[in-house]
Amino acid sequence: MNYAEMMLAMGVRAKRAARGMAKMPSGDKERALRLMADAIENARGDLKVANAKDLEEAERTGLSASMVDRLTLSDAVIDSMAQGLREVAAQADPVGEVVKMWKRPNGLMIGKKRIPLGVIGIIYESRPNVTADAAALCLKSGNAVILRGGKEAIHSNRAIAKVLVEAAARGGVPEGALQVVDVIERDAVVEMLKLEEYIDLIIPRGGEGLIRFVTANSRVPVIKHYKGVCHVFIDESADHDMAEAIAVNAKTHRTGVCNAMETLLVHAGVADALLPRLANALMDKGVELRGCERTVALVDQAIPATEEDWDAEYLDLILAVRVVDDIDAAIDHIDRWTSLHTESIVTSDYANSQRFLNEVNSSTVMVNASTRFADGQQFGLGAEIGISTTKLHSYGPMGAEDLTTTKYIVYGQGQIRE
Amino acid sequence: MNYAEMMLAMGVRAKRAARGMAKMPSGDKERALRLMADAIENARGDLKVANAKDLEEAERTGLSASMVDRLTLSDAVIDSMAQGLREVAAQADPVGEVVKMWKRPNGLMIGKKRIPLGVIGIIYESRPNVTADAAALCLKSGNAVILRGGKEAIHSNRAIAKVLVEAAARGGVPEGALQVVDVIERDAVVEMLKLEEYIDLIIPRGGEGLIRFVTANSRVPVIKHYKGVCHVFIDESADHDMAEAIAVNAKTHRTGVCNAMETLLVHAGVADALLPRLANALMDKGVELRGCERTVALVDQAIPATEEDWDAEYLDLILAVRVVDDIDAAIDHIDRWTSLHTESIVTSDYANSQRFLNEVNSSTVMVNASTRFADGQQFGLGAEIGISTTKLHSYGPMGAEDLTTTKYIVYGQGQIRE
Repeated sequence: MNYAEMMLAMGVRAKRAARGMAKMPSGDKERALRLMADAIENARGDLKVANAKDLEEAERTGLSASMVDRLTLSDAVIDSMAQGLREVAAQADPVGEVVKMWKRPNGLMIGKKRIPLGVIGIIYESRPNVTADAAALCLKSGNAVILRGGKEAIHSNRAIAKVLVEAAARGGVPEGALQVVDVIERDAVVEMLKLEEYIDLIIPRGGEGLIRFVTANSRVPVIKHYKGVCHVFIDESADHDMAEAIAVNAKTHRTGVCNAMETLLVHAGVADALLPRLANALMDKGVELRGCERTVALVDQAIPATEEDWDAEYLDLILAVRVVDDIDAAIDHIDRWTSLHTESIVTSDYANSQRFLNEVNSSTVMVNASTRFADGQQFGLGAEIGISTTKLHSYGPMGAEDLTTTKYIVYGQGQIRE
Repeated sequence: MNYAEMMLAMGVRAKRAARGMAKMPSGDKERALRLMADAIENARGDLKVANAKDLEEAERTGLSASMVDRLTLSDAVIDSMAQGLREVAAQADPVGEVVKMWKRPNGLMIGKKRIPLGVIGIIYESRPNVTADAAALCLKSGNAVILRGGKEAIHSNRAIAKVLVEAAARGGVPEGALQVVDVIERDAVVEMLKLEEYIDLIIPRGGEGLIRFVTANSRVPVIKHYKGVCHVFIDESADHDMAEAIAVNAKTHRTGVCNAMETLLVHAGVADALLPRLANALMDKGVELRGCERTVALVDQAIPATEEDWDAEYLDLILAVRVVDDIDAAIDHIDRWTSLHTESIVTSDYANSQRFLNEVNSSTVMVNASTRFADGQQFGLGAEIGISTTKLHSYGPMGAEDLTTTKYIVYGQGQIRE
């Protein structure tokens, strides 16, 4: 097959459809998303049959248990896809909002009005439910979308796509606004990444390898989310109960997620009194501690940390721990090792709370809260298309609004330049 | 010289300086920019001596008159550099603004706070005054900046840079926050474009060749401004005097600029009555008309247009003219040929004004105003770093605010996830 021609044809269709999507009334988009949710529920049997083929293949090729887990379309996952579509349907439409407007001395009224980006490409791995989530957010924000899932989920993705595309068409979504790349070869991705005239944004969702491949090969702008090495800094003035609750929650509430804490920093002034207590609470939950010299001196069971530990995204019941002299040393450590995802300070000191919020420039900076809240849903953005750790366009959890841009609108009364 | 090492060293210095720039108080930034303005004025003699070397070289190599014009540091240009620095100094500081903030059901307060992008690279041609303008906007917005001017202006750029860097240092700007690439070889640019770990954004300013070269070679995100093929559509209901004033102003006020009109679209219902009048007014100003069949039938002096004319950025006293059946045909024409810069409708019809504003998704869309207003200064953004015709991050005229992003800030009271 000629992948260049195939992808170009998809790009041309998507760009044509994007014009219709940009004009689609909010109520019509909402209705189409609800039809898509119903269709997913009604196709439960077919989706499971298709998914079984992928699971068989996964067993044959010896895919890891966690990959198989993410690949499986259980009833709960199918329910959550339908639920996600309905939640996005119910959200406010970002398109058309006038973000601000002002008047110039010559009487011109200048405004910034929200419009869709155009065509969005999503490249993802393993989890076939991303197909529904990503489709929902892209269509809600008035964009056309080209989805490209992993080869391990090709049968599931095809089945979900078929259901969604049919329901979208019944709901009046323009032909071509929702397309799924139906081949498993990576060459198709390479061709997709060349379509700078047709695709406005590429979002890769998956492991670091996928993201680096996409970034290295794309002429289309890419929004990346590499990894989350989230820090919690326990300041000298921290409330001890709060410090324990937040440290335990940030590390153990869920470990395989990017907003879990990976490094705990403790102010030297409170380390003697508090660190053994924090360590015990964490070890009670099965956490292995890897500490700096001062940590190891205070906590017998802690293993000496190496430099790699400060950079590690464990995604597991392991935690790096470091005692720091003061808030400056904490901010320096974060500045050196941050993944620009999420950092939190636990403190009772007003000035330090403000310094942390002002001087730490990760995409989410918190005071007295668990890093686990760094999430589009938890922030109230509705569903989330990913968490950007690069600063351009969007930084932090991205919702439907982040899939739009603004154009300038100008109301005149015949003004000309003198 | 090893350009890779040289550029890496500049990137490392810039990234280190960016941390200090992000924290620099607004008042200090304002003071530093005023010192830089004074220094430019005081160095008038030295700047002219350096510029004379570039002008000699330009004469030797036979640079075009328009290039020589852009290269010349006249008293007026030196005054305008100082003036530009003072205007940017006087602007509001975008850094630190909390764009919005809301409360979640669990009591968390979530906000979006404006922060600098980090390190910005500007790659430009010919006009050495860009050095001062770009430095001012980048520093105002709390960024470090690496500037790379064209080889034809190397002596002027060096001299301006020396003056600005010394004044910035006196004003407390961190060492490395303002750097100028001091070699003429293009290999240095190629190396600069690889520094994705150190540079957050590249903005090329210059001809289409430069922009395509930068885009094709950059691993750092690029904001592009290719060209401006601006349209004015005269609707059937347009006020005739206003139509004439806007058409003449948009075409002839200045021709060599990206916001000049290049194509005039006229509603068929008013073409007989109005087009000959518009044509005469334009021809009186020396404009050559290239028209569609219906235009040529109404205006004897019009030359038949070819398809290339609909795509042409003349930057000259030439205008493409087309009679269209209705507003749908006008929007279709724009949709087919737009450069996504600026389009304007002249109309007295409320519904058509709204349709044009909603359905045309160029970066600036106007009603009853000359396209010549599409400019950061005219919009009230202060100085302008360029006009983006790509949708990601910024779309349309870009001021200091467009060189920032937002991080999420979270105020908690000990919240953990259940």
